[in-house]
Amino acid sequence: MAHSSKIFCCFSFLFSTLSIIPLSHQLEQHPLDSLTPIEFIRVQAIVNQSHPTTTNDITFQYIGLNEPDKQALISWLQNHRTTPITAPPPRQAFVIARINHQTHELVVDLLYDNIVSDHIHHGFGYPLLTFEEQNGASQLVFNHAPFLAALNKRGLKVEEVICETFAIGWFGETKQNGRVVKVMCYYLDGTVNLYMRPIEAITVTVDLEAMKITHFRDRLVVPVPKAAGTDYRESEQKEPFGPELKGITVVQPDGPSFIIDGSRVRWANWDFHLSFDARVGPVVSLASIYDTEKQEFRRVMYRGFVSELFVPYMDLTEEWYYRTFFDAGEYGYGLCAVPLEPLRDCPANAVYMGAYVAAQNGMPIEMPNVFCIFERNAGDVMWRHTETMIPPDLITEVRPDMSLVVRMVSTVGNYDYINDWEFKQIGSIKVTVGLTGLLEVRGSKYTHKDQIDEEVYGTLLAENTLGAYHDHFITYHLDLDVDGKVIGRL
Amino acid sequence: MAHSSKIFCCFSFLFSTLSIIPLSHQLEQHPLDSLTPIEFIRVQAIVNQSHPTTTNDITFQYIGLNEPDKQALISWLQNHRTTPITAPPPRQAFVIARINHQTHELVVDLLYDNIVSDHIHHGFGYPLLTFEEQNGASQLVFNHAPFLAALNKRGLKVEEVICETFAIGWFGETKQNGRVVKVMCYYLDGTVNLYMRPIEAITVTVDLEAMKITHFRDRLVVPVPKAAGTDYRESEQKEPFGPELKGITVVQPDGPSFIIDGSRVRWANWDFHLSFDARVGPVVSLASIYDTEKQEFRRVMYRGFVSELFVPYMDLTEEWYYRTFFDAGEYGYGLCAVPLEPLRDCPANAVYMGAYVAAQNGMPIEMPNVFCIFERNAGDVMWRHTETMIPPDLITEVRPDMSLVVRMVSTVGNYDYINDWEFKQIGSIKVTVGLTGLLEVRGSKYTHKDQIDEEVYGTLLAENTLGAYHDHFITYHLDLDVDGKVIGRL
Repeated sequence: MAHSSKIFCCFSFLFSTLSIIPLSHQLEQHPLDSLTPIEFIRVQAIVNQSHPTTTNDITFQYIGLNEPDKQALISWLQNHRTTPITAPPPRQAFVIARINHQTHELVVDLLYDNIVSDHIHHGFGYPLLTFEEQNGASQLVFNHAPFLAALNKRGLKVEEVICETFAIGWFGETKQNGRVVKVMCYYLDGTVNLYMRPIEAITVTVDLEAMKITHFRDRLVVPVPKAAGTDYRESEQKEPFGPELKGITVVQPDGPSFIIDGSRVRWANWDFHLSFDARVGPVVSLASIYDTEKQEFRRVMYRGFVSELFVPYMDLTEEWYYRTFFDAGEYGYGLCAVPLEPLRDCPANAVYMGAYVAAQNGMPIEMPNVFCIFERNAGDVMWRHTETMIPPDLITEVRPDMSLVVRMVSTVGNYDYINDWEFKQIGSIKVTVGLTGLLEVRGSKYTHKDQIDEEVYGTLLAENTLGAYHDHFITYHLDLDVDGKVIGRL
Repeated sequence: MAHSSKIFCCFSFLFSTLSIIPLSHQLEQHPLDSLTPIEFIRVQAIVNQSHPTTTNDITFQYIGLNEPDKQALISWLQNHRTTPITAPPPRQAFVIARINHQTHELVVDLLYDNIVSDHIHHGFGYPLLTFEEQNGASQLVFNHAPFLAALNKRGLKVEEVICETFAIGWFGETKQNGRVVKVMCYYLDGTVNLYMRPIEAITVTVDLEAMKITHFRDRLVVPVPKAAGTDYRESEQKEPFGPELKGITVVQPDGPSFIIDGSRVRWANWDFHLSFDARVGPVVSLASIYDTEKQEFRRVMYRGFVSELFVPYMDLTEEWYYRTFFDAGEYGYGLCAVPLEPLRDCPANAVYMGAYVAAQNGMPIEMPNVFCIFERNAGDVMWRHTETMIPPDLITEVRPDMSLVVRMVSTVGNYDYINDWEFKQIGSIKVTVGLTGLLEVRGSKYTHKDQIDEEVYGTLLAENTLGAYHDHFITYHLDLDVDGKVIGRL
């Protein structure tokens, strides 16, 4: 097996050949729609023209919709229903690009094909990491003699080593560090579960701008946990197996009850807009619910998305202390979305949708099947009552509970986040994040808990394997505007 | 419509003709099995023989299994697997009976057909109310002239009145009140939703032993909220209707994956015993999970059930202050179980089970379809991971989440509790209580919230309708014994 370059997350090696849809065939664009492939290409061209690549070193760290002003959009949507000729709010892209090693925040107008603003960011904080630079950084070790010597010292085969880039956090330094990552490596050799086989005690620091290793230290040799029993693939499991369950599936003989019209989703009494962003993943906008008595839609939420996933580790050792990941802001909750596995990630009645993000060169990348939408029939009851007090009949009225789920899975390294937006007929929106995947573990010299006489910042789970103490904090941006001023369905 | 007698809950007017199953046809009895119909009859006969009904006034307030000693039972179950001739723990019934106006707690042995103990309870607290005495108490008002005058004063038709008996709580009195209930009445006349039409400000106090009204007060006239818009029956709904959803169902072409063997349920890696009790409803015992590596069952929970549902109201008015209901201990969470509606209360793949409780005369009453058992296929994911780091393949492993649900619905007056025990393949048991039905409301003179200038102990929900402040506290008896000493499957 060839040693792998680091792509911290996402299936970027599955890049599809891009098929550009002619504008004329597109449905009417909604002002909150994600950028289209053509728009990504235009944004890239406009930025490149304004900063010619012959004289500039340009990387696109983020391209997404520059969200229109809320009030302007609401006014337009309301007027648009009666006066469809009114111009929509300006269609703009927000771009974060590194141009000659500076972070530019640009707003690009897609009607006039020009740059509306170009601001250089001098403060703390760095843009999203691109796949390409993470890839580049984690490849460097394979040409770094001290690293190869460190592998040799441990008796590890270089072709079984996989490396990742880790954001370094911020600990109150007043001097800016520049764009720096650490590279951490894992070992395969008999398993695909690399996360269970960390190669500990080696620190590799990479300056992303120079794309060079600026610091290397091999502190001590810690045993790499064994491969046996770590492979999670069904095909690799051995007897004894647990009891097999008989088949079970959900059936909708007349098809689904939801309608997907471009980015608009309608189901039961719900209507909402769904888009996708490289940084935050799914964005639900303009969620409204139809009031059958008033015969009008009533606003519930203007815009909602996961704004950040903060994952700090509580380990003070030299190779772990800095691990305080912002999975959205550093790696991209949307960028790390993975293709959903039909019949497993989502039930048989699910419909799948793709999305686009920008590559480092600004060109669109198609991400197939990042969303699934399905009606959830969990066997729950929405409302019921049995009335025993009025003989001779027993009155039993039961309304089964159905809901609509929009799901995305984002795999940030070892962790898989299952992100659900669930719309219920009673008028509530339920947000859920399921956390699964593989536990982040630290290699250790210990093989039994009784040997441990120091703080190891974790729990011994198996020989040489500590489950590392950490938290997952998920924050949401929820702009609720229940019964906000509304004239009909937006 | 004839005026109805009060049966606070339960479908006791659907009493089935009892078909007695010959003992010889029964499966081997488990020591934790609920009492069988024959056992109820034997218990009744033994108690009646010991206190002849010709000289005694006897009512059976509760008959259930006298739970065997835990350690004795576990030892027997362990030995029984190797030495099936060992005698099981004594099979006994626990009986609470009123005999000549005293509360007797009796233990009846079902092997020797004798009374093991007969204790008279002198302390605070009263046994479960029987349907029959609740029925009797709420009928009394219809022959009580001041009550009929009170209806007349309000312009209400007696044939549209439905009455209920309410437990009176305990407020630290040192003198025992005797077995006393209050009777509260509601009005139909154009709706089946009697709970939305309380007839307020009348206090009726009934002594259950004398079966007489001991106190009556008609304090003031409060408007009865109107019937319009309160009927919840699907057949009574008028346009405009909400959007209709297309059909959706769950299908198991090869049948369910669970096996019900008497009271034992086996599904996936789980094995447990299910029984039913008039007071607490479903009882899950001896829940164990199979460890495929150790190739043995591991204990998780010895016994679990809802021990009480406490529903206190926060209303200090004369007719409401006493409402501090113990739904299990006073009305019977099991007694109030209702027949589940196939395809609505439980999905298409559910299997239904009945149960028995004792009537006031001690004879068994069959309660059909009080349980449903089904595999839940909610579209959730048990575990997943996508591995992007090992080209050329993307590894995606997803294990969909299936679980087994045991459901009972208990309707205590206006409230319907949906009681689920959910067994998950990851080894957890999830207990859920869904609260639905009809909100307890208080009649009020107010028709708009701006009129209210006093504490009304509720929220004005509609004209003359206050949603009454209250809580629902649910407590569980959970005797967890994870990995308790076990020799094989119990």
